[in-house]
Amino acid sequence: MLRNRLIDGVRRIKPILCGGQSLRSLSNGATSKLTTIEVDDRSGIATLSMNLPPVNTLTMELMHDLIDSINQIESNKSRGLILTSSNDKVFSAGLDLKEMLNPEVERLRLFWTRFQDLWLALHLCGLPTAAAINGHSPAAGCVLATACEYRVMLPNLFIGIHATRFSFVISKWMMNSYQSVLPRRIVERALNQGKLFATQEALDVGLVDEIACSKDEALSKCAAFIATFDKTNPVARCLTKRMCREPDVRELLQDRAADLKECVDYVTTPLFQEGLCAHLEGLKKRK
Amino acid sequence: MLRNRLIDGVRRIKPILCGGQSLRSLSNGATSKLTTIEVDDRSGIATLSMNLPPVNTLTMELMHDLIDSINQIESNKSRGLILTSSNDKVFSAGLDLKEMLNPEVERLRLFWTRFQDLWLALHLCGLPTAAAINGHSPAAGCVLATACEYRVMLPNLFIGIHATRFSFVISKWMMNSYQSVLPRRIVERALNQGKLFATQEALDVGLVDEIACSKDEALSKCAAFIATFDKTNPVARCLTKRMCREPDVRELLQDRAADLKECVDYVTTPLFQEGLCAHLEGLKKRK
Amino acid sequence: MLRNRLIDGVRRIKPILCGGQSLRSLSNGATSKLTTIEVDDRSGIATLSMNLPPVNTLTMELMHDLIDSINQIESNKSRGLILTSSNDKVFSAGLDLKEMLNPEVERLRLFWTRFQDLWLALHLCGLPTAAAINGHSPAAGCVLATACEYRVMLPNLFIGIHATRFSFVISKWMMNSYQSVLPRRIVERALNQGKLFATQEALDVGLVDEIACSKDEALSKCAAFIATFDKTNPVARCLTKRMCREPDVRELLQDRAADLKECVDYVTTPLFQEGLCAHLEGLKKRK
Repeated sequence: MLRNRLIDGVRRIKPILCGGQSLRSLSNGATSKLTTIEVDDRSGIATLSMNLPPVNTLTMELMHDLIDSINQIESNKSRGLILTSSNDKVFSAGLDLKEMLNPEVERLRLFWTRFQDLWLALHLCGLPTAAAINGHSPAAGCVLATACEYRVMLPNLFIGIHATRFSFVISKWMMNSYQSVLPRRIVERALNQGKLFATQEALDVGLVDEIACSKDEALSKCAAFIATFDKTNPVARCLTKRMCREPDVRELLQDRAADLKECVDYVTTPLFQEGLCAHLEGLKKRK
Repeated sequence: MLRNRLIDGVRRIKPILCGGQSLRSLSNGATSKLTTIEVDDRSGIATLSMNLPPVNTLTMELMHDLIDSINQIESNKSRGLILTSSNDKVFSAGLDLKEMLNPEVERLRLFWTRFQDLWLALHLCGLPTAAAINGHSPAAGCVLATACEYRVMLPNLFIGIHATRFSFVISKWMMNSYQSVLPRRIVERALNQGKLFATQEALDVGLVDEIACSKDEALSKCAAFIATFDKTNPVARCLTKRMCREPDVRELLQDRAADLKECVDYVTTPLFQEGLCAHLEGLKKRK
Repeated sequence: MLRNRLIDGVRRIKPILCGGQSLRSLSNGATSKLTTIEVDDRSGIATLSMNLPPVNTLTMELMHDLIDSINQIESNKSRGLILTSSNDKVFSAGLDLKEMLNPEVERLRLFWTRFQDLWLALHLCGLPTAAAINGHSPAAGCVLATACEYRVMLPNLFIGIHATRFSFVISKWMMNSYQSVLPRRIVERALNQGKLFATQEALDVGLVDEIACSKDEALSKCAAFIATFDKTNPVARCLTKRMCREPDVRELLQDRAADLKECVDYVTTPLFQEGLCAHLEGLKKRK
């Protein structure tokens, strides 16, 4: 039988990934509540669960706790990291769009920097990473999944970056994340259409690697993927992974301010504000 | 029943895409005769037909009219653009090779600039674009097709960039256009071989997306593709498309003169002139 | 019946590809013994065989003779080049790892420069190239195979870059060589895992193009591939191939010293030396 233990490590934020003051101030010794980490004593694999009801919206706080947890797991030298959700209906509903509606610019800058930090932390994580996608995974939920090295998904769900449906234009690094997994032709079309792939479609194009019938099976398949690295040297593996992913992050790392400015400039246009408003109205009506 | 109407809009050439004086002087209020535009009133989709017998050779004039028509359709805010041919045997036979035989350099420069303009106009067109390939589509005919976002082709035709068979070396941006659709390995091999894909082969590798039994069916399938964007914001869609395609055009936009010089330098070599001569002799004999 | 003839051409090393003094001094008119070249008089295709028992380890000398032979074949204007092994169990076992164990730095620099030279000579070879992979092809053996334009492999063999299993971190240009053949997602995963693909798996992902039942059949299939270029102009073909491959080699050609320094710096770390030591011990035990 497996014995799990909760890591109580000290919060550690990599300076290079830290977007600014607010990240540090939020981490004043507080205990993370929006994510949980379970480490399997036998396998050494850490399972990181998003735990913000109802739909794991990526709020400022959930992103903070995710970054923090990724760094904890990395510094504890776990054998691998599995990202999943406590919620069996939604993996993550994506970014907190309310932060983009009539935003105060300074707050928006912090919010977007946080999202950059989160993607960088996961995309460049030195450990083997896998996503057990046990619920819908639209927009930034999909971006998180593609930042992992392997994806296992449950049936009858959807996944994809549907930004154009709510008037949003994603950043290049989000496109790079998609393109690290899917062929160029599929990426352009899916982004333009704002396509959400059903589980089977996602498998067919390669957006997910396997389908599992239950969350437990998804976790097992992710663990089996992480075990494929057993014969490799962890440092050589980590350096090789970063060499492969360096072209995806180069532009962002060289000029994070430019990406931030582009985002703020676009989000504050009337075009986007109107489009977002209409989208949020539509979501309300569906409830 | 569908009602079609002919656009009689004013010619509008985007300054950034304009290659020089000659383009403007050619458009002195003349009516385009080598292309026709039909807009479906119900769907709002514009069908742009190449109409230069016998084989839609991309002459200076046809390219002018195509650029002009693309710009008209874009400025009329049509819902999408379908590129096709009035000719049921040939979509387009490619560039007018006679312009490359013992060329006068200034004329060659205008000719190649026109082709750059045409590709940029179609590749960066803000509207959803699709090609109904109702005839053979070799060389620059294939480049036009790959500049669209979707391709539907009739059976028993061929498509591909067979430049190495007539001693030509294509520009990088033409390679980029191919590579935006096909995997890297397929692109290199096909370009080196000067491969012409039969319809079914083209479908198998992803060079075309669907096969249709008739031109009408091809047009319907293109219209269905354009309808997949109905739930998206048109501006966000356009910006997303351009973000995806920006790496393809970057080098050309940054230094159009360099591409032009490379082309002129190569076309005027004895090697190419002899190769082209032999090729044109071969074509004559086949008739 | 085919008549073969042995080329006795003068050694010719392209200056641009020459890594330094040692390459020239080694070629003081000596006859190559570690490689053989057979040219089929009828087809004009040259077969280049690696012939260093027991496993075609890429030693300083074998790499020298390979570069030399590639240059000979190119300057003799053969119709194509087929790379194979005299040894029916191993195509090439990869780099001579003993050169990396407690290396003398100057020697290591020469060794790595030689390997850069070899890859450049094969990757940019103006002739059509194909690999008849008649034995296992791990690590640098796989890199040589991917530098060719076509790969035919015998059953029940393995091929792949398994560097992370012996603590090595490959150079970017080796990754580029892999990525010129395989999709991005497959490349990253395979490199991180140090994956060796069985013949059938290699076919499934596209790492090899065909399976042959015997070495003769493999050679025939390679010759058939080379024949697909018969209708092309050889100069236009060569320039087109180099345009396609230019992005793969750009960084290396612009700064070969940087790649050399990275390699020397990493190879001389205790981490790598310990990993390599353990790997070599493991290989001894298996014998």
